Amino acid sequence: MTDTTPSEAHAERPGRMMSRETAEQPEVLRRILDTGAPAIRATAEAIAARRPRFVLLTARGTSDHAALYAKYLLEIRLGIPCGLTSMSTITAYGAKPDLRDVLAVTVSQSGGSPDLVASTRAAREAGAITLAVTNNPDSPLAAVSEHHIDVLAGPERALPATKTYTAALLCLYLLVEGLGGGDGPAVAAPLPDLAAGLLARQGEIKDLAARYRFAERMVITSRGYGYPTAKEAALKMMETSYIPALAYSGADLLHGPLAMVDNISPVIAVVTDGSGGAALQPVLDRLRGRGADLVVVGPKAQVEQASAGFVLPTGGVPEELQPVLEIIPLQLLAYEVTIARGQDPDAPRALAKVTETR
Amino acid sequence: MTDTTPSEAHAERPGRMMSRETAEQPEVLRRILDTGAPAIRATAEAIAARRPRFVLLTARGTSDHAALYAKYLLEIRLGIPCGLTSMSTITAYGAKPDLRDVLAVTVSQSGGSPDLVASTRAAREAGAITLAVTNNPDSPLAAVSEHHIDVLAGPERALPATKTYTAALLCLYLLVEGLGGGDGPAVAAPLPDLAAGLLARQGEIKDLAARYRFAERMVITSRGYGYPTAKEAALKMMETSYIPALAYSGADLLHGPLAMVDNISPVIAVVTDGSGGAALQPVLDRLRGRGADLVVVGPKAQVEQASAGFVLPTGGVPEELQPVLEIIPLQLLAYEVTIARGQDPDAPRALAKVTETR
Repeated sequence: MTDTTPSEAHAERPGRMMSRETAEQPEVLRRILDTGAPAIRATAEAIAARRPRFVLLTARGTSDHAALYAKYLLEIRLGIPCGLTSMSTITAYGAKPDLRDVLAVTVSQSGGSPDLVASTRAAREAGAITLAVTNNPDSPLAAVSEHHIDVLAGPERALPATKTYTAALLCLYLLVEGLGGGDGPAVAAPLPDLAAGLLARQGEIKDLAARYRFAERMVITSRGYGYPTAKEAALKMMETSYIPALAYSGADLLHGPLAMVDNISPVIAVVTDGSGGAALQPVLDRLRGRGADLVVVGPKAQVEQASAGFVLPTGGVPEELQPVLEIIPLQLLAYEVTIARGQDPDAPRALAKVTETR
Repeated sequence: MTDTTPSEAHAERPGRMMSRETAEQPEVLRRILDTGAPAIRATAEAIAARRPRFVLLTARGTSDHAALYAKYLLEIRLGIPCGLTSMSTITAYGAKPDLRDVLAVTVSQSGGSPDLVASTRAAREAGAITLAVTNNPDSPLAAVSEHHIDVLAGPERALPATKTYTAALLCLYLLVEGLGGGDGPAVAAPLPDLAAGLLARQGEIKDLAARYRFAERMVITSRGYGYPTAKEAALKMMETSYIPALAYSGADLLHGPLAMVDNISPVIAVVTDGSGGAALQPVLDRLRGRGADLVVVGPKAQVEQASAGFVLPTGGVPEELQPVLEIIPLQLLAYEVTIARGQDPDAPRALAKVTETR
């Protein structure tokens, strides 16, 4: 039933690698702020000088959620319209788009997927300004792109990506702030300590995990900046515990899948402290009205009205940076639920770290 | 547990309305080709004269899948880069994008959702060419848009949208062909008869439905033009039967959720006859290698290699038009599975026909 073999090295303790890599996040965030920020700033300035009018973002899996976060930032902070590309239009159908004035951003932890390399090369040939955001400056993707941002997360060995996700989010935030001429590093300075504070609360997450040990499915919802977090949390849950976790924006949830939510489908809501969380309010009210099992990751007042939750202190960090923090308890939750179900979060069935789609 | 009451009128026979509206599809497709096409052509010509360089598509639920189909068409057939908008950037965060040279297409069956109206108005104010594609020419959305295409599907009463979906696909196809100067109506002429042929095979679908009567979850996959079909089929299945149905592009499936697919998670693959289907081949091979329960909707040769399936005759219709057909057996499947589970496809719990998200 499985076609990958966990290496001997991590057969000792299930989830050892995921656990360690999750714990490294404060250090990675600090490294980006201390040593990566100037290069990101320079890249942002070089790109801003070319005045892109449209941004196309390309990625898969966890990186796709980082790309979606960047889309919100670019549209809200800079007013630049964005699209997430459907890679097959280029790789399977040979589309020849006109990409003058377009910034094409490709996000990939490994920088090794052949389809990402092919579509980035095609974008460059079609006139786009190309930027790769990867954890590997020596990757084929970095080589084929005009610009490259190294997310500086260090080697990631567990199959579920954790530290490369938050690292990509912070780098993309610094890029967008740089494009707009803002001082990203100053605003982001509290993140490493806040992240460490979240990791210290693993005991709370362990208690929460008991709730999902026997869950057969799960819905994760959010709105605005928190929506990429909901999608990433759902993927994390599925690829570690195999619980089918469906992510919906709050508005989309009301357009259909709400039919599935009742007291046998627990809901996790990611409530950012700001406009996105406020826009989610009617959805939360509706879910409570239906008697849904609702767990909130967000501000104290929201957690208190839910069935259970995890209070996310934001330490004055603005809404647009909260996604870097709010995924952390959800990574821990995926880990703890998987351990509670007797599985190994490090080595999900059938997954390879570099996906060779073409 | 439910907060909508099925009206007395359709308490008689479960699924009466969905069944009737699904059956109306050949007639609706014929109406669009016979009476709607010239107006769509004129709209396309008016828009083409403005030479849009980017297209932003806005929709929710089923209409979002029609918008995704349009995105593939625009990128592949015309080489115009596209994005699907995140409405909350405008409605919750007040983003002020620069939309000169941008065509903003909003797809909505009812044309009544306040958030769609607000974001379309904002797009128009930001300089976009605006086009609404709706089933209601008297809707607020049609009123606020510079251009309007009426999908001519007639009143849709069942909560799961069926005929408005295929109608929107065909109208969007005619629009894109019109933008490119092609003869869409001639190419699409075989569709009404082919659709009628599919509907006549409901017995085959009933047999297939037995397979999912006790399913606890389901994965639906495709690639390229068939991907919107996979997403729409998953939504249809969820909103009628409440089976959690997860839609993934074939490439995304390999990036994580494959861990969930084993012999307890049945997979439905939508295989279009063309480049998209060919690009899905390695994913199909991998699924078969894992012993997955694989049902294929697509060409005969693919169905024969799967656990079961539904052969989709394309009658020479090109790949880009096949989505109009391939959703039909999947609509019937959602209906039959729901009936087999003793539920009413017409009136899913908690859904309202016009969703009042703001």
